[in-house]
Amino acid sequence: MHLKETKLNETLLYDGMIMRVTKDQVQLEDGSLAYREIVHHSGGVSALPLTAEGMLTFVRQFRYPFQEALLEFPAGKLEKGEDPFDAAKRELLEETGGTSQKWHSLGEIYPTVAYDTEIIHLYLAEDTQFAKAKPDAGEFIDIERYSFDEAMSMLMRNEIRDAKTAVMLLKLSELKRSGKIRF
Amino acid sequence: MHLKETKLNETLLYDGMIMRVTKDQVQLEDGSLAYREIVHHSGGVSALPLTAEGMLTFVRQFRYPFQEALLEFPAGKLEKGEDPFDAAKRELLEETGGTSQKWHSLGEIYPTVAYDTEIIHLYLAEDTQFAKAKPDAGEFIDIERYSFDEAMSMLMRNEIRDAKTAVMLLKLSELKRSGKIRF
Repeated sequence: MHLKETKLNETLLYDGMIMRVTKDQVQLEDGSLAYREIVHHSGGVSALPLTAEGMLTFVRQFRYPFQEALLEFPAGKLEKGEDPFDAAKRELLEETGGTSQKWHSLGEIYPTVAYDTEIIHLYLAEDTQFAKAKPDAGEFIDIERYSFDEAMSMLMRNEIRDAKTAVMLLKLSELKRSGKIRF
Repeated sequence: MHLKETKLNETLLYDGMIMRVTKDQVQLEDGSLAYREIVHHSGGVSALPLTAEGMLTFVRQFRYPFQEALLEFPAGKLEKGEDPFDAAKRELLEETGGTSQKWHSLGEIYPTVAYDTEIIHLYLAEDTQFAKAKPDAGEFIDIERYSFDEAMSMLMRNEIRDAKTAVMLLKLSELKRSGKIRF
């Protein structure tokens, strides 16, 4: 079969808190054999909080793999079996105190397609209103607010590098331009 | 220190072909301790091939983590110590037979910021010309060409889910609109 790899067997290498790692032997379409190292992850969600005045709310937090505090839209890991939309509402509330009655899907992204099963579900929250944030214990987060134009300038200057945040902001730009989202 | 985690120690869990996995103990800013499971990856590159006529060249290949043949811009893994721009030129040539004299950086993305060190370096190749592709052994790839408008429609219908491809195409849309890239 063209563009298909068939799994022959799987070896569990690591079963941890947020990931499981396996090495799978696969048969390629020409019959040859290969190995695939795969990170299995439960997936994530992210919410772009937009206010009626057109302001965007970001979180800044230390991201250990990059040893850097990154600017992102509020996000979190999906708990096993959790509905992505419920998770997005939860993360927006916990990290920023934000709530909205006007949600839209911004689709899904596959962050790194070669070796990781993670899918991130993306949402836009219009007319977001803010009360006090309730971060989890051990979660240290700064809130930063920017206008759409400021955020787009930062993105095009390569100052916003988180993939989900970039896709969400750029999709918002398309929706704004086509008149599907007005602010 | 605010928004900083300090590494106390690291345990190697797996050292494989394309990734190393560690579990690091860290000290958070309030003095409490936590663990971080980290995938260490050498990084990747991707090239958006645009022709003088405004056509975009994609590759479709089976991506084992999703058991699905995905539409992406040509991409590959950085070899240790390899220059990202050299790698982008190499991958464009190998996967599509494409060459260009007119390259631009489209910045970098961090695909999944919580637990993976991978950085993907993004490039735009203008006026790309095509000879015969030379895929690596064991690499099975279909070439698909779409106009910019067709590609943007697929993206906004959530039919292009690969994060790097989405960011590159959406950044091209911004550059086209601002007149910085003309086609």
